[in-house]
Formats: sequence, structure tokens, C-alpha cells
Amino acid sequence: MATAGPLTLGEIAQALRVALEGDPDLKITGVAPLETAGPDQVSFLTHPKYVHLALSTRAAALLVPRDAKLPGPLLRAENPQAALIGLLRLFHPAPTPPSGVHPSAQIASSARIDPSATVGALAVIGTDSRVGERTWIFPLVYVGDSAEIGADCIVYPHAVIRDRVKIGDRVIIHPGAVLGADGFGYVFDGTRHQKIPQVGSVVVEDDVEIGANTTIDRATLGATVIRRGVKIDNLVQIGHNVEVGEASILVAQVGISGSVKLGTRTILAGQVGVADHVTVGDRVVIGAQSGVTSDLREAGSYLGMPARPVAIARRISGGLPRLPALLRRVRSLERRIRELEARLGLEPPAAGADEDE
Amino acid sequence: MATAGPLTLGEIAQALRVALEGDPDLKITGVAPLETAGPDQVSFLTHPKYVHLALSTRAAALLVPRDAKLPGPLLRAENPQAALIGLLRLFHPAPTPPSGVHPSAQIASSARIDPSATVGALAVIGTDSRVGERTWIFPLVYVGDSAEIGADCIVYPHAVIRDRVKIGDRVIIHPGAVLGADGFGYVFDGTRHQKIPQVGSVVVEDDVEIGANTTIDRATLGATVIRRGVKIDNLVQIGHNVEVGEASILVAQVGISGSVKLGTRTILAGQVGVADHVTVGDRVVIGAQSGVTSDLREAGSYLGMPARPVAIARRISGGLPRLPALLRRVRSLERRIRELEARLGLEPPAAGADEDE
Amino acid sequence: MATAGPLTLGEIAQALRVALEGDPDLKITGVAPLETAGPDQVSFLTHPKYVHLALSTRAAALLVPRDAKLPGPLLRAENPQAALIGLLRLFHPAPTPPSGVHPSAQIASSARIDPSATVGALAVIGTDSRVGERTWIFPLVYVGDSAEIGADCIVYPHAVIRDRVKIGDRVIIHPGAVLGADGFGYVFDGTRHQKIPQVGSVVVEDDVEIGANTTIDRATLGATVIRRGVKIDNLVQIGHNVEVGEASILVAQVGISGSVKLGTRTILAGQVGVADHVTVGDRVVIGAQSGVTSDLREAGSYLGMPARPVAIARRISGGLPRLPALLRRVRSLERRIRELEARLGLEPPAAGADEDE
Repeated sequence: MATAGPLTLGEIAQALRVALEGDPDLKITGVAPLETAGPDQVSFLTHPKYVHLALSTRAAALLVPRDAKLPGPLLRAENPQAALIGLLRLFHPAPTPPSGVHPSAQIASSARIDPSATVGALAVIGTDSRVGERTWIFPLVYVGDSAEIGADCIVYPHAVIRDRVKIGDRVIIHPGAVLGADGFGYVFDGTRHQKIPQVGSVVVEDDVEIGANTTIDRATLGATVIRRGVKIDNLVQIGHNVEVGEASILVAQVGISGSVKLGTRTILAGQVGVADHVTVGDRVVIGAQSGVTSDLREAGSYLGMPARPVAIARRISGGLPRLPALLRRVRSLERRIRELEARLGLEPPAAGADEDE
Repeated sequence: MATAGPLTLGEIAQALRVALEGDPDLKITGVAPLETAGPDQVSFLTHPKYVHLALSTRAAALLVPRDAKLPGPLLRAENPQAALIGLLRLFHPAPTPPSGVHPSAQIASSARIDPSATVGALAVIGTDSRVGERTWIFPLVYVGDSAEIGADCIVYPHAVIRDRVKIGDRVIIHPGAVLGADGFGYVFDGTRHQKIPQVGSVVVEDDVEIGANTTIDRATLGATVIRRGVKIDNLVQIGHNVEVGEASILVAQVGISGSVKLGTRTILAGQVGVADHVTVGDRVVIGAQSGVTSDLREAGSYLGMPARPVAIARRISGGLPRLPALLRRVRSLERRIRELEARLGLEPPAAGADEDE
Repeated sequence: MATAGPLTLGEIAQALRVALEGDPDLKITGVAPLETAGPDQVSFLTHPKYVHLALSTRAAALLVPRDAKLPGPLLRAENPQAALIGLLRLFHPAPTPPSGVHPSAQIASSARIDPSATVGALAVIGTDSRVGERTWIFPLVYVGDSAEIGADCIVYPHAVIRDRVKIGDRVIIHPGAVLGADGFGYVFDGTRHQKIPQVGSVVVEDDVEIGANTTIDRATLGATVIRRGVKIDNLVQIGHNVEVGEASILVAQVGISGSVKLGTRTILAGQVGVADHVTVGDRVVIGAQSGVTSDLREAGSYLGMPARPVAIARRISGGLPRLPALLRRVRSLERRIRELEARLGLEPPAAGADEDE
């Protein structure tokens, strides 16, 4: 990833199509966060809570929301987050792959590699597989037999794409990700676990990103499906026959058991687990470390193990620190009520009925 | 994994040794689940809860339990789950490896590779290592020095088997699994963590399956041992000096700390953690996301953090949603009892004793 | 890892600089734990709780604390844990790498590999990268462009060090670890998640150890930093822009979200999760499976989800098993107080106010 520049503020404003307040000839050498930016770098304010940092930054200029009240020079953007993407790419253009197939790659003669694709050193591509236009296969990648990889994909080193896995266009697969390992299924015959053959596949649609060392198992029959635009972080486990709905976000170390269906635009925060055969509806958001043990069909936020609507989960969680005192308070109430009952000549309940266990 | 067929229903019944009700000459092209099977495919009912799907399926025939009450054609099996394994293999025979050692593999001259074994492209096998009969080492696998791999194993791409690890027969190691990395052990000397050399090994007995990107650390001394028939899912961590008992099941993302002993036929559901030096008895089943912090010797099901017998854990979990209301109820009781005490001229406890914290 | 020996007890005592009680000419062939040591092996007692094993061991001699009361032969050490490291290394000297660069490695012509370094078979090293003195790159490692690896490092098979990652001296990187994959950051534009370019890097200081299949993401801008002496176990996830303070310990399957700062000598037990932008102070210890959702600045031990000071967390956890009985006890109190109120002619609260929900 080479760095470009320097650029003038005017050139930056023009490239990002944002309004400039300040000297268009000011030379900028790069982008940096508010805290570390130097006097020849541009920085950015994407959230109002960092405005105090914006006031003390040494940056030469700031990319800000259109209505920000800050001293200049400023680059005012309708959508500063989207403009930040452009700004980062201006100074850090995406790397261009070395062209062609490295002579040390091991490519089956029946594999079809598009002439515009790149295959790095010591990569392996199996029989009858296909690699699309401009796709970049890094060194040491393994692609099995009859696999298909679309156009404009990036497959980083040590990724494993097993046989018959199908990958769409513009998919990014990070190092060490494993697509299409066998699902985890056995029949116990009384003495041992007999393996159920996992003869299905994995289908990854367009614009998906799959994190480092994440594992996506092939289906028993049919396909495990990752729908268009899904973003998956590192070390996520996706079991066989799962379907992850469009534009969903799975944060690191999430585990999805077999045959789960996740709806469109779900968000699962880090370390969430979902039990097998569960259905999660569209736009369901699940907080970190939660465990989903049954269907959550209604859009909204859920939390806890088992996952409950977040308002309920918070009330439970907020009540927990008062539990030890509550035990003492109930013991005191029991003592006092026995005293009252004695005064009025009432029988208390049988001994032990209200005792601590 | 090539697909075979078509086969007639009669041929299928004979191969699976199951009773056929229907036309033995009906041509079947494959297997599919109830929901997606077409009129030239066979499907299967392995659990009564899916009987409604069996009634509406378009499948040409169904593999069912011996006493199932369904319209034909039917393949009636004593053990339909075991028969399903046969059915899947009929239409999806296990792939046969390309024979021999790929010329690009890097194999130490002292390594003994059985002539019936397969070693794929760009695999590395270290000095004095041994690969048994019919074992299939996929491309890009790393086997260290003095490692031993038995007969009829499959080692998928990017698996790492470090030096001196011993693997039995019929073991399947999925992509990216790491066997024999150093255990995690240090002595803090007041300023830094000094590494304790991890000079032991890993022993994997026969019929074990190890999931993608799972890690099994070598022992400090002696061996980390995975007993016969254990099945381990993806992204599982097994620390140094652990022993996993025969035919145990470790679901994805389980973490087993150092020196843990798991008994025979334990089942640890997804994301379970077990603290170091803990002993888990035979046939203990631990629910998803539980944390095992002390010995669980008695067979049975456990749940929660810390893991408790499942009946107790469920009662606690079921009580939690009532905790917020319980706090209100106790506050109301305290108010009412003060009123009663006042009526009877009793002293209430010192102020604050029953107040909310 | 070859084994050395046999050595006499006298030679061992001299090498470890410990006091010998017993026959200096006794021949010792190796080291073993108390339970399994044979009559020609030396064993060790590093914790008093194992003294019963020390009394029944068959070992020829024991490495013990200076003041241990045990029958001989004994090797008495000021610091028996540190002496154990020496003892293990005596019989299991660290392996020496095969020298030089393997001819099958793919090394860019602009890469600078120190002549004393080792590069194994089929490793890949990118343009302008640097490998320092005596560093051992194992087979099948991937090092991207412009990466720097210091002196005396070990990088195990299938590790991935992406472009521009900087690694200090004496760093150990276990198999399958991924350093410098893209951080997980997107801007949702109303229809799809747009990727924020991750143009920063990863800096790993001296004396760090990184576990198998662990992932450390590159920063969006700037660097994800792992400070000197940090030890990271297997399958840990470290997000972009994180800083892990000196000599911290991250146990297996820990997940650290983006922009987290961990102080010096923190300890995060297995499966802990830390939410994004959280600051954890020096010497904070977090118990297994805890979730850190907000800053924990004060040194001390924390536990639970959300993580609370351990004394509080234990009191809550200890109260939970009494929650079901508490519900019954409160119901009983409500019945009895209604009875009392009736006796005294008091109005009970509106119906339902104290009922179970």
C-alpha cells in the first residue's frame, strides 16, 4: 500500500467534492487522527464527541460535517464519513497486484484463470476451478477442485477455499479463512460417532468480506449461504446449512450453529453464540457475548444469555448488584413478620418455610 | 466429491439393506432435504417433528423409520440416520486422492511416506517423520520433524502438525488446524514473563476429527492426549497437558485450559470454557457458553457460569426476569410492615436497614 | 527438539547453580512430572499443594524450594520455577535451525535477509522486507511487502505477516497467526456497508509471543501496538488501533475490540471480551468469560458480564442460587402481611400490586 501525495487542500476538496474554507494552495502530506496529526496533515471529525480534540489538534485542516462550528481551515462534507473513505484512498491508493500467474503457483491445467487475474507465488488451484476478472489470489492460497471465484475479489495468503465453493464478485477473504470445511455432524451408533458425509457446499454472494481465520462450513446437502454485502470479522464460526441475510454484520468470535437463518441487516456483536436451527429476523441487533437460544423474529436489540429485549436485559442486569442486599432485606422482613404474628396470636408457617436454603 | 447415479429405488434399497415400499425401477438422481427435493430425488425423515414437511415434499421417495405412517414410496430403515449416511455416500462417493507424492512437495529424505499415501503440491514433511498407508496429505500442509501420522488419515490444506506429534489411524484434520504449538506457560521473574519450555507433545488416537483452525497445544512435559473417537469442531482451543476422553464431542469455539481432564463421552457445547486443572467426569454434558470453574464429576447436564446442574441453572435463569419486580415487591413489603409495626407500637429496625442500596 | 543427556546430578546442580543433597554421580536421563517420573529421571515440586505426590514419586531426585522438607536426593533452589526452566533446557536444548535460505522459498530480490537468518521451504517474503539476525522463518510462512522482523525471532509455519507490519527482537509467532489483516470498519450508506480503508499497520515490540491462529488487525491509521513482553495465547482477536500494555497476558480466545487501550501487566483470562474504545488500567486482572463494557482504571480483579470488582461479582454470583427460593419467600411474606393487614383493618395495596408478574 504505497502512499501518494503531497496534495494541496484545493486538490483534496475537488477530489472529494467538498466545500473548502481555507487556503487552497496549502500542501498536505497525509491523513492522521486528531491526536497525532502534524501541521502538514489533514485530520477529520466524524463524531461530535471528539470536538474537544478537534479544538486542540495540530492538523493543517479538518474534514468536518457541513455545519461544524470550528476554526478553519475546514473541508465541509455532506457526509463526512463517506468523504473520509475518499480522503484515505487519496493518500493511500489501493495497491495494484503484480500481474499474471507466478511461475511457482500450482494450477491445474483444467482451471480457468482469467488473463487479468493475479495468482501469487506457491498458490494452489485445483481442477476445473475458475478465477474471474482482475481477482487477486495471494501467495500460498489454496483453492480446491471445481471452485468458482468471481471478479475483483481479493483472497489473502493462507485462505482455504475448498472444492465446489462458489464466491461472487468483489469478495475479500482475509488470511487463514477457511471456506467449505466439513460441517460438524455425526450419528452415534451406540459405540462411536459415525460421520455424516457433508456433501453440500458454500455460496458467498457479491460484496462480502470474510475475516482472518474465520471458518464457514459446507452444508450437509445444499449450501451454506452468505448473502450479498455481509461483513464477517475475524475468528467467526459459521456452521453447516446456515444462511446469513444481506448486509448483516458478524463481529469477531461470533459462533453460528448449524441450520441457523439470520435475516437481512442483522448485527451480531463480538462473541455472540446462536443455537442450531434458530431463526433471527431482519434488523435484529444482538449485544456482545449474548446467547441466542430460540427464535428472535422481531427487529430490535437483544442482550444476554439467553438473549432478551435489551430493556428487559438491562433491568435484570441492573437489579443483580442489589441481589445480595435483597436477601438480607427479606430475612429481616421474615423476622419482623414473625414478631407481628406472635403479637396478634397468629400461627407462623411451619418452621423452615421461610428460611434461607 | 463427484456425484454418482442415477440409481433405481431397488438398487438403493439393496445397497442400504432397507425395506422398499414402491416401484423398484423408479430412477433417482440424488438426495435432497424434504423442502428442496425434486421429483427425481430421494429425501429422508430422521426426526418426527419434520413429518409435516414429509407430507408436502415433492421427493420421489423417502427414507423413513420402520414404523413411519406416510404415503409411499418409502425406504423403511431400522436406523434411518445410519441409513442416511449410506444414502449420501451412494450418490456422493468419497473422493479418491490423486496417487503419489507431488513433485513440488518438500519432503525430507529421512521421512518415510508409505507408497500408498498421497502428498499434495507444496506440502512440507520434516526429517524422520512418517506418513501411513493410504493417508492423504493435502497441498500446503506442514508436518514437522519426527511426527507420525497413521493410516487412512486426511490432512487438509494449511494444517500444521509440529514436530513429534503422533496421530493415529483414520484421523481427519481440517484446514488450518494447528497441532503441537507451544503450551502457554511463563514464570514471572519480577520484571518479565520467562517462557517455560514446552518440550512435550500431542498424541491423537484413532478415529478423531479435528476442526478447521482448531489449536491443540503440546504438553510442557509428557503429552496432550486426544483419545479415540473424539470429534472436535472448528476454532476450539485445547491447552497443554489436557486429556480429552474417548468419544467426547467439543463443539465450535470451546476453550479447554491447561491440565484439564475430560472423561469419556463428554459433550461440550459451543463456546464453553473450562478452567485449568479441572476434571470433568464421564458423560458430563455442558451447555453452550457455560464456564466450568471446578470439578464436575457426576454424569449429567450442566449449564451457566459457573456451570451448575441444568435444573438449578434453569430455575435461576427463569427467576432472573422477575428480579426487577421482586425489588419493587420487597420495597412495598417494607413499607407495609413499618405501617403495621407503627400500629402495634413496635420499633422498626434502625433507619436504612431495609432501604435500597 | 532433540533431547540431551544423560547427565549426573552433580552436573545438573552445577548447571542450575542449585544446592545438591545426594549422590553427585547419580545418572539422570531426563525430566518428568512427579506422577510419571521413573527412577532415572529428575522431577520437581514447584507448589506445596503437590507435596503428597513428591512423597510417593519414583523420581531419582527432586528440584525443590530451598526449605522443602522432603527425603533426598534434592536439588534445592532459591527460585525453583526459574530453575525448572533451566532444567528443561538442559535435557531439551532449543532446536537449532537449518542454516540459510531454502531454495524453494520465494524471496523478493529487494528483501534483506540477514545471512545468519533461516528461511524455510516454500516461505514467501515480499519486496523491501527485512529479516534480522538469527531469526528463523519456518516453511510456508508469508511475509508481505515492506515488513520488518527483528533479530532472534521464530515465525512458525503458516503465520501471515502482512505488508508494513513491524516486529521487534525475540518475538515468537506461532502457526497460523495473522498480523496485519484489515481492521473491521465500514460506513453504512443507506444501502450497503462501505469499507473504510485500513491503511495503518501493526507494531509488535520485543519479547512478545503470539499464539497459534491469533489475529491482530492493522490500524485504520497509525498502528495497532503490542508492547514489549506481552504474551498472547491462541485464537485471540485484537482489533484495529488497540494498544496492549507491556507484559500483559491475554489468554486463549480473548477478544479485544477496536481502539481499546490495555495498561501495563494486565491479565485477561480465557474468552474475555472488551468493548471498543474501553481503557483498562495497569495491573487490572479480568476473570474468564468476563465482558468489559466500560473503563476499568483501578488495579484489581474484575469478573462477570459486565465486569465488576471480583468481591461484588462473587456476592452476586453467590446470591443467584437463592433467587428461586427468594421468590417463594416473598410470595409467602405477601400472603402473611395481607392476613395481618386484614386483622388490623388496614387496606392492602390495590390488587395485583404485589403479585408475581
